[in-house]
Amino acid sequence: MSLARKNIINLIPYQTGKPIDELRRELGLKQIIKLASNENPLSGGSLCARTAIRKALTEINRYPESSCFYLRRVLCQRLRLKPDMIIFGNGSDELIDIIIKTFVEEDENIITADITFLEYQILTQIIGRRLIKVPLRDFRYDLKGILKKINKKTKVIFIANPNNPTGTYINERELKEFFKYIPGHVIVVLDEAYDIFVDVSDFPWGNNYLRYKNLIVLKTFSKAYGLAGLRIGYAISCPELISYMERVRPPFNVNSLAQIGAVAALKDKAFIKKTKNIILQGKEYLYSQLSRMGLRFVPSATNFILIDVRRDGQNVYRGMLKFGVIVRDMKQYGLDNFIRVTIGTSFENKKFISILKRVLTERG
Amino acid sequence: MSLARKNIINLIPYQTGKPIDELRRELGLKQIIKLASNENPLSGGSLCARTAIRKALTEINRYPESSCFYLRRVLCQRLRLKPDMIIFGNGSDELIDIIIKTFVEEDENIITADITFLEYQILTQIIGRRLIKVPLRDFRYDLKGILKKINKKTKVIFIANPNNPTGTYINERELKEFFKYIPGHVIVVLDEAYDIFVDVSDFPWGNNYLRYKNLIVLKTFSKAYGLAGLRIGYAISCPELISYMERVRPPFNVNSLAQIGAVAALKDKAFIKKTKNIILQGKEYLYSQLSRMGLRFVPSATNFILIDVRRDGQNVYRGMLKFGVIVRDMKQYGLDNFIRVTIGTSFENKKFISILKRVLTERG
Repeated sequence: MSLARKNIINLIPYQTGKPIDELRRELGLKQIIKLASNENPLSGGSLCARTAIRKALTEINRYPESSCFYLRRVLCQRLRLKPDMIIFGNGSDELIDIIIKTFVEEDENIITADITFLEYQILTQIIGRRLIKVPLRDFRYDLKGILKKINKKTKVIFIANPNNPTGTYINERELKEFFKYIPGHVIVVLDEAYDIFVDVSDFPWGNNYLRYKNLIVLKTFSKAYGLAGLRIGYAISCPELISYMERVRPPFNVNSLAQIGAVAALKDKAFIKKTKNIILQGKEYLYSQLSRMGLRFVPSATNFILIDVRRDGQNVYRGMLKFGVIVRDMKQYGLDNFIRVTIGTSFENKKFISILKRVLTERG
Repeated sequence: MSLARKNIINLIPYQTGKPIDELRRELGLKQIIKLASNENPLSGGSLCARTAIRKALTEINRYPESSCFYLRRVLCQRLRLKPDMIIFGNGSDELIDIIIKTFVEEDENIITADITFLEYQILTQIIGRRLIKVPLRDFRYDLKGILKKINKKTKVIFIANPNNPTGTYINERELKEFFKYIPGHVIVVLDEAYDIFVDVSDFPWGNNYLRYKNLIVLKTFSKAYGLAGLRIGYAISCPELISYMERVRPPFNVNSLAQIGAVAALKDKAFIKKTKNIILQGKEYLYSQLSRMGLRFVPSATNFILIDVRRDGQNVYRGMLKFGVIVRDMKQYGLDNFIRVTIGTSFENKKFISILKRVLTERG
């Protein structure tokens, strides 16, 4: 008899994008590019962040400030929010766990899409709650379908906007319409991990919807801000919901270098501007190349593209690995014939296209 | 009606030791010493760790390796363990949460002491499991009392060894005897956060008891290794229990700089030696001073001392704050007349004694 809980034994853990070092160890390749985890492609992220971290190393023997005091202050000024409307996490993934633990009782359920960020499902299963998955329509969240599934026991709805791994988004009109029908006992979580890259005009920034007291907006420093290695994200909501989440938050969940790096990265506007330009240019390039190759892809509002390779995506993924190019196959999402590629630097995008051509030709 | 779960509304969150910066902001003091969180007193921890981190900053835009590959390798060599017998956490606190989520079903219970590391209780309550608290005897874990409380629904026993906040420990003989009566369905967790400081000869190092397949040993880099700010700890157990915990572990829970800092800190034996000497000397000094002052204290096997100040400990704590000395009152532990002091550098210990004398005299 196993000592583990029943729902842990049946759990399929999250598979991460393959780390560069791991592929280096396995194949001994010198030049490797990783377009697998939707990271900022600029090495080391913001120079301001690195400089600030260097200066702070003399304090790593001390526990971090639990309140993230300085980061909270800068962020509140930037977003024009009161300090008690923000909570920080060890990446925004941790905040998903905190939301479930804080709000969802044992007999309550959670709704999300069938093809979306896998952690909603995994964390729900770990805590042992019921998850209702509503199929995407044309690779987009089906908000009407979600509304139909809401019942008395529904407590949280997770919406990744833009959605990962599809890159699609819910627009202003759709979100406003959606909120009209959300009952007061249901919390809507808008996960905006990919917000900074958004290049469409009708995107419904969660910050503008905080009049809804049952809205939680998730943000991260792991993507555009270039701090994935440090692990820091945050949630915005009304003071009441934040205060409950604060009770569940582990006291030292955000390390001190992440706090310091995030303050500096927030102030480094030139870095964000540069990042956005690189992604926009890269997206145009990839769109045109993929079209020329006759490959169908899902138009993306953010920094990654879901591509239909019309054959087993795992094989394509493995084929590309041998040439030092790491992308993501979509088997775990049930999209067997797809890969997802993160938009990288110009050099990386070109290499990706050339290796993709090679692998697709080889495998006919 | 609140949207939060019932057991969250009743939760009393963990109170952290007061951060130096917070006191500085509040009182504008220049010189502050913190002896409140049992940290390594050497500023910046190991120089080797800081140097290694500086070199690694160029990769912070990438997610950390989920496997902690390099740290795992070094640690396995050091401890002569197989790689699948270790799991890493965002501090060892996270591993407590992972243990509960992995093993304890809704109708099962957890046993620990009444006065011990508060996170056992807080995390049990957050997940919504039943906690049985067995009173200490003479400030020590009462293992016989714990054995009497085990029933069919007991799944985990948390034992902090040495115990925090008392500094007492369970010895080899007691632990061996205890294990004789532990049923196969019960997992014993030995939390050895303060192991490196232990200065007694009959301490039962958890690593030596891994023949018990239902033992989990918790370790941290936050104390002797001087990396509290980076957040990293680990658990050792048999491959089966570790494999279940790995399913529950968030994929990017340990940031990349913590991984790199820990590798370097592990190799920096001179730093650990220096640290141990400082603590040993400081302990002798504090023992003799406290005795001269006629204050009762609990003899400690590690780097902090629980002191009976024979008046309200919160008042003493607040009185010392005004002089820039941060210790810990013990109200949250139900020890109203006690403070806990971390052993610091020679300078810090002297300052602590002088301010303690002053505050105790003032308050009669």
